[in-house]
Amino acid sequence: MTEKYTYDLSEGDASMKPLLGGKGAGVAEMTRLGVPVPDGFTVTTQACVETMRNGGEWPQGLREQIDDALTRFEQRVGRTLGASTNPLLVSVRSGAVVSMPGMMDTILNLGISDDSVGAIAEESGNERFAWDCYRRFIQMYGEVVEGLSGHAYEDALTAMKQRRGVGLDTELSAEDLKELTAEFKKISNEQLGGEWPSDPREQLFRAVEAVFRSWQNPRAKVYRKANHIPDDLGTAVNIMQMVFGNRGETSATGVCFTRNPSTGEKALYGEFLTNAQGEDVVAGIRTPRPLEEMEQVLPKAYRELVDTMHTMESHYRDMQDMEFTIENGALYMLQTRNGKRTAAAALKVAADLVSEGLIDKEEAVRRIEPEQLDQLLHPAIDPSNTAKPITKGLPASPGAAVGAAVFDADTAAQKGSSGESVVLIRFETTPDDIHGVLQSQGVLTAHGGMTSHAAVVARGFGKPCVAGATEIKIDTEAKTLTVGGKVVHEGDTITLNGSTGEVFDEALTLIPPRMNEDFLKVVGWADEIRELGVEANADNGPDAAKARELGAEGIGLCRTEHMFFGEDRLPAMHEMILAGSDEERQTALDKILPMQQSDFEAIFTAMKGLPVTVRLLDPPLHEFMPDLVSQALKVQEMELKGADEQDLATERQLLAQVKKLHEQNPMLGTRGCRLGMLYPQIPEMQARAIVRAALAVLEREGETVELQIMIPLVHLRQELATQREIVVRAADDELAKAGKELAYRVGTMIELPRAALVADQIAECADFFSFGTNDLTQTTLGISRDDAENGFLGWYEAQGVVKRDPFQTIDVDGVGQLVEMGTRKGRAANPKLSVGVCGEHGGDPDSIAFFQQIGLDYVSCSPYRVPIARFAAAKAKLAQAQAK
Amino acid sequence: MTEKYTYDLSEGDASMKPLLGGKGAGVAEMTRLGVPVPDGFTVTTQACVETMRNGGEWPQGLREQIDDALTRFEQRVGRTLGASTNPLLVSVRSGAVVSMPGMMDTILNLGISDDSVGAIAEESGNERFAWDCYRRFIQMYGEVVEGLSGHAYEDALTAMKQRRGVGLDTELSAEDLKELTAEFKKISNEQLGGEWPSDPREQLFRAVEAVFRSWQNPRAKVYRKANHIPDDLGTAVNIMQMVFGNRGETSATGVCFTRNPSTGEKALYGEFLTNAQGEDVVAGIRTPRPLEEMEQVLPKAYRELVDTMHTMESHYRDMQDMEFTIENGALYMLQTRNGKRTAAAALKVAADLVSEGLIDKEEAVRRIEPEQLDQLLHPAIDPSNTAKPITKGLPASPGAAVGAAVFDADTAAQKGSSGESVVLIRFETTPDDIHGVLQSQGVLTAHGGMTSHAAVVARGFGKPCVAGATEIKIDTEAKTLTVGGKVVHEGDTITLNGSTGEVFDEALTLIPPRMNEDFLKVVGWADEIRELGVEANADNGPDAAKARELGAEGIGLCRTEHMFFGEDRLPAMHEMILAGSDEERQTALDKILPMQQSDFEAIFTAMKGLPVTVRLLDPPLHEFMPDLVSQALKVQEMELKGADEQDLATERQLLAQVKKLHEQNPMLGTRGCRLGMLYPQIPEMQARAIVRAALAVLEREGETVELQIMIPLVHLRQELATQREIVVRAADDELAKAGKELAYRVGTMIELPRAALVADQIAECADFFSFGTNDLTQTTLGISRDDAENGFLGWYEAQGVVKRDPFQTIDVDGVGQLVEMGTRKGRAANPKLSVGVCGEHGGDPDSIAFFQQIGLDYVSCSPYRVPIARFAAAKAKLAQAQAK
Repeated sequence: MTEKYTYDLSEGDASMKPLLGGKGAGVAEMTRLGVPVPDGFTVTTQACVETMRNGGEWPQGLREQIDDALTRFEQRVGRTLGASTNPLLVSVRSGAVVSMPGMMDTILNLGISDDSVGAIAEESGNERFAWDCYRRFIQMYGEVVEGLSGHAYEDALTAMKQRRGVGLDTELSAEDLKELTAEFKKISNEQLGGEWPSDPREQLFRAVEAVFRSWQNPRAKVYRKANHIPDDLGTAVNIMQMVFGNRGETSATGVCFTRNPSTGEKALYGEFLTNAQGEDVVAGIRTPRPLEEMEQVLPKAYRELVDTMHTMESHYRDMQDMEFTIENGALYMLQTRNGKRTAAAALKVAADLVSEGLIDKEEAVRRIEPEQLDQLLHPAIDPSNTAKPITKGLPASPGAAVGAAVFDADTAAQKGSSGESVVLIRFETTPDDIHGVLQSQGVLTAHGGMTSHAAVVARGFGKPCVAGATEIKIDTEAKTLTVGGKVVHEGDTITLNGSTGEVFDEALTLIPPRMNEDFLKVVGWADEIRELGVEANADNGPDAAKARELGAEGIGLCRTEHMFFGEDRLPAMHEMILAGSDEERQTALDKILPMQQSDFEAIFTAMKGLPVTVRLLDPPLHEFMPDLVSQALKVQEMELKGADEQDLATERQLLAQVKKLHEQNPMLGTRGCRLGMLYPQIPEMQARAIVRAALAVLEREGETVELQIMIPLVHLRQELATQREIVVRAADDELAKAGKELAYRVGTMIELPRAALVADQIAECADFFSFGTNDLTQTTLGISRDDAENGFLGWYEAQGVVKRDPFQTIDVDGVGQLVEMGTRKGRAANPKLSVGVCGEHGGDPDSIAFFQQIGLDYVSCSPYRVPIARFAAAKAKLAQAQAK
Repeated sequence: MTEKYTYDLSEGDASMKPLLGGKGAGVAEMTRLGVPVPDGFTVTTQACVETMRNGGEWPQGLREQIDDALTRFEQRVGRTLGASTNPLLVSVRSGAVVSMPGMMDTILNLGISDDSVGAIAEESGNERFAWDCYRRFIQMYGEVVEGLSGHAYEDALTAMKQRRGVGLDTELSAEDLKELTAEFKKISNEQLGGEWPSDPREQLFRAVEAVFRSWQNPRAKVYRKANHIPDDLGTAVNIMQMVFGNRGETSATGVCFTRNPSTGEKALYGEFLTNAQGEDVVAGIRTPRPLEEMEQVLPKAYRELVDTMHTMESHYRDMQDMEFTIENGALYMLQTRNGKRTAAAALKVAADLVSEGLIDKEEAVRRIEPEQLDQLLHPAIDPSNTAKPITKGLPASPGAAVGAAVFDADTAAQKGSSGESVVLIRFETTPDDIHGVLQSQGVLTAHGGMTSHAAVVARGFGKPCVAGATEIKIDTEAKTLTVGGKVVHEGDTITLNGSTGEVFDEALTLIPPRMNEDFLKVVGWADEIRELGVEANADNGPDAAKARELGAEGIGLCRTEHMFFGEDRLPAMHEMILAGSDEERQTALDKILPMQQSDFEAIFTAMKGLPVTVRLLDPPLHEFMPDLVSQALKVQEMELKGADEQDLATERQLLAQVKKLHEQNPMLGTRGCRLGMLYPQIPEMQARAIVRAALAVLEREGETVELQIMIPLVHLRQELATQREIVVRAADDELAKAGKELAYRVGTMIELPRAALVADQIAECADFFSFGTNDLTQTTLGISRDDAENGFLGWYEAQGVVKRDPFQTIDVDGVGQLVEMGTRKGRAANPKLSVGVCGEHGGDPDSIAFFQQIGLDYVSCSPYRVPIARFAAAKAKLAQAQAK
């Protein structure tokens, strides 16, 4: 049996959106509710999908079904497509399941022809209108359906206007347009070699085909990719009777929202134009009028419209975005859908709808798009900005930054600390640049990915960052940035959009973050719903305070290495690394201990008794040293220039050390607990600093921090057992010396495949697991993030080889399987084990949905993603409950 | 209830080896069989293990049980330890489960004392003998049990000989020795502060303690590590009545083997000395006489000994290594064990024992230590060599090489091709050195691990290689190698032992590889038993021929990248990499195609119709380019020295390319099928070259190669699907053009954790899986092999954090779990899937045992390990059958 590929309006309803598309289901639902909608029928998404699968061939029966549906349609309205009496004109529009505004094609006025144009002129009493429709149709059909170039038509129109000595289309007469129509037909015939189908039914088939095709056009693909819409959904096609808003002063067209989409306020919001078609509103030839004024002009239609808006909002229990046309005083609704809105509006609408009793709190939470909240949490570029970016890199740390370009960290630090707004531009940043980063509004790098040093540090400090902007050329001598022929000198103002990766060579207006009552109300409901704990990754006091303010229930990851990068600390760190004996190493560590302690005190103070999970030193030691290439070049330069022998000896020695620490693959090298195994004094020092800090805060603030000490990069049970013993011995020694008691827990990162595979063995020594899904993704997939995002992985994404960047959204099949396995095995061996995630996936809504499914205890993410995670966790819980 | 810690000889038998140790079980078994053995008892390994666990404290009841056992012993022999009449003297010897010759301690003559010395003199009728025993005992007890230094005793002995004006110990009289005994006692008392225990029972307890302790001494630990003997087995202690081979001309001592341990020939083999103790044989003071001569000297004892040898060999059904003593014409057996033997002997003995009907073929195979066969397969350093190595690196490719030192590849190539034997010495090798490697006897590098370029290439070519000899300093200008104060100049002869990593600064004698009838016979039995297929990794015709000769059933891994490293090919490869357009790339690939084709032809010809699995291009492209640091230095040097602008521009451009290709973590970078995705022309060219070669060989040789094309580094189903399509399209096109048919299969390496985790998805597009366990280990454990083996991993091994190098023997819990999972899932999705391993684990016996357990189809290893793998696979099958 053949599928049913067409549905008359009366056959559909809102629930059939997957089959009829948003528009098709919307107009069917309105018809059901008695709202006036032009008659017509819908070709299903299924028909489009099968056509794509067949390489463009229509499925069996589709043509016949369209033919039949059209015949029924003609019978209902008593008109015939393209007929010389009572002709039917139709619009042919795309209608995807998820709204993709403007991405696909539309054909209007189909059915107008040499046969029918006379009847239309007569019926409308407006010959000019009839010929205007006809010439527009020929051009639209030619361009959209037959793929002809629009230039020839435009040239003919311009020539006509010149001949007539007029400036505007509207100044052409009916006779002019008739002549133009003839010319347009000639143009089409010439381009098509005479294959112009004159039968309107044939034109309709071709138009449907064209709409199917437009699902695959490049801009639609890009839009879907950006919005994570699957490529295989296909579009429905809506065939509806044309109604005309341009049939005189009692006709009009417009769009309206049931609430304000910018603010969420409950007030009419919309625009209309009398004697106009939809295109006129969009094209901006005439300025539309505010909807309120319609009450005066077309009072009956206005009242009907307002009633319809109330009806539809109550019916859908959400703010509606509607299109309407009034033809000779009669209102027709052409479309209704849930209106797109800003984050602020989304929160207000959700809160209000609950107050109004239209939806419950769960539904309100369900309505929030967590990702959208990002808008609220960073100063953002004013959405009305129209400037063009000079280049685009990776959106490495969200928010916007405006400041003067500087090309080295010292200048950035100096200018920044004297109150100037600067943006630091580097090929890539190193630990030596940290002081400059701290004093900048934002960071731009030509190299490196989403976990590059610049990106990690910037996110840690909540600074916007655009990384890996590979098109830019940086000349550090001349202090210039060059891209696409444009040159930015030191001191020139630039703007970064860390949320999109865009870079502008001017100062754009920023708008401040907004966290209002509505936000607090709705996020409170989310907190009531969610099961997953939400903690934050934060490495210093201010970040911890920000995290707490944004609702973090603790610090799930406090990295201790950024503390070592401080200008005042790097020398002690070098001393530790270069130590020739255990004694020398201990001396250096003794210097570092009080610094670490004060860092921890700041964090513990900010968290006021909430849990803090401190990860012991993680990166390979060479990260604290100069770069190998630079140091080799430096030594050679000194040699060739005959530098002082003493200086040369020092630099040579440093080079030897750098060479010794150099690793082919540092990601797989001597780091994490491997350092703690080789140099047990390091974890010992860190454990002492943590406990001393906790005791100091208890003493001073009366707050007992919930301490968790986390061992990184464990892959063997023995590693954790040894490290745990070192930590416990040092911590207990400090407590004994102080004569105090303080509970603390020792756990581990699970960030290597083996750790997940033998989680049962490791769990025997752990109080908690925190999945480090960044590194786990790198090793499980064999992808070095820094190398790949500008390389093959970006290409894979562009080509659709991977659907989602696995570093943004967890790879459920691979990495997810390990997280699930590690959790299951870990808990089986140790039922008291608590399990969370502290990779970037901890702040990604889709990943959070997975973590909810497999029953993790908590996620930890960067402070500014905490609110997003709170909503995402609540929505994940709701979705899971619904699925059951 | 207390454990039973002591066993009288009559209480034990051969099956109790784990409890009584090899020696204890051996003498108990001999007792059971009526062979004359001195009476005594054994303290169990269990007692030692518990003592170690208690931190040196003896377990409850041990002291009492030894006391009782001694009393029973005294009653049986009618003698009393240390008594003045009928005194009992005993030996106290270690006896581990696995023989550890000479690694632990022994105390002889315990029971001699001021009380008993007189009776001993009287009984033996030899006062000198009694006092000689006594002074020896005091020294041995002092050194071994009480940990005193031997110097003072030696000095006293020397002084005595000087006073008496004699050269040899044996020239001292009874009186002299009595005086020396008194001096020795004084020395002991002084050093111990008077705490010298005079009670022989107390001495016995302490001696047992000392033997326990010696299990933990450094040389025993090193020996166990080298031989993979677990550290927690403990040693038994054997207390036996002393018998004396030095009581005159009717006394003697000796060792004997039931067959020749060097050749395996069935002939008496042994040595003896009359009027001597065991030590005299070992110390080499007197030259022992061949065993055959004993027939003349001590005919009765000789006949008894020969009978005993036959008895014991038949009983154990294996060649025995025995120790005996004849006291006054009476034969006593002190020890019997399966004799250690060379690989050649092992094969001959096994083959002969089968012929003699003593064992069956399965038992013969079970007796072969596969690892030992390595001896047979490479020219080896004559085992009688006593030279001291100048340094030691990693044993990167087995075998021995002797040749003149050269420090650059060009010289090596030139001298080598003119017939000179050279050894190439480099800091590390690069693709540019390949011609030098080819013409060298072996390679020595200061840098790099077991998978370094040098190591991989050397193994590929079957050349010995010592890599990562970190102690050596290489001066390429002066052409010298310096280590430990020694300097090797170009042209000086050196010897490498690639099986041990040792380097010698002289020419050592080599012995050629031996593959005789016995080998072929026994390996044939192994082939009948094993289920696992054994294939080889080989990249060129000669290697393929060698693999086939050594019994490989196919090529399981033919890497195609080494072919690109050839001097004549690198330029075309550079052209391909630097290509600015698809057309330029294609032009370069067109040059490479015929070169690849001819390589494949050579391999297919050598394999004569056996399967060949060709892996498509795998390494990141920058491996074919100059090193980043060198190129940066070169450019800077040219800049500072003011080089020609044109030349400089060229080098700068090259530097820019090298920078662009540079990756932070190349192991996780753009390589494997990722290259084939980005540049589909590469797999296409390779597929064409493979098929053309197969057709050419079919035409010329009439041999149809069983073609398998393997896609590397897949982690997504889509990658394999795309690559498969490219390969199939190209291959089918070649076949169509030639008008021929040829079956081929397309499969993939499983070498990333994700690939194993989603093996079900990947198997849908694969005809076969080959686990690349080298890379799989690196990513699963997060360990970069090159960095780690000279770094933390070596340290982990030394410290016992890991028991075995996971790159040598598969990590069963982690990596093994993935191999098992990938196999299971893959076969579930595709029941026709064949599954093998082509990492280095494919040639490791313990890993092969695991692969047998999880039911893989085949292993592939380097050609010289093929015989080892054949035996290991057979033994694994036998072990599995036994376990069932």
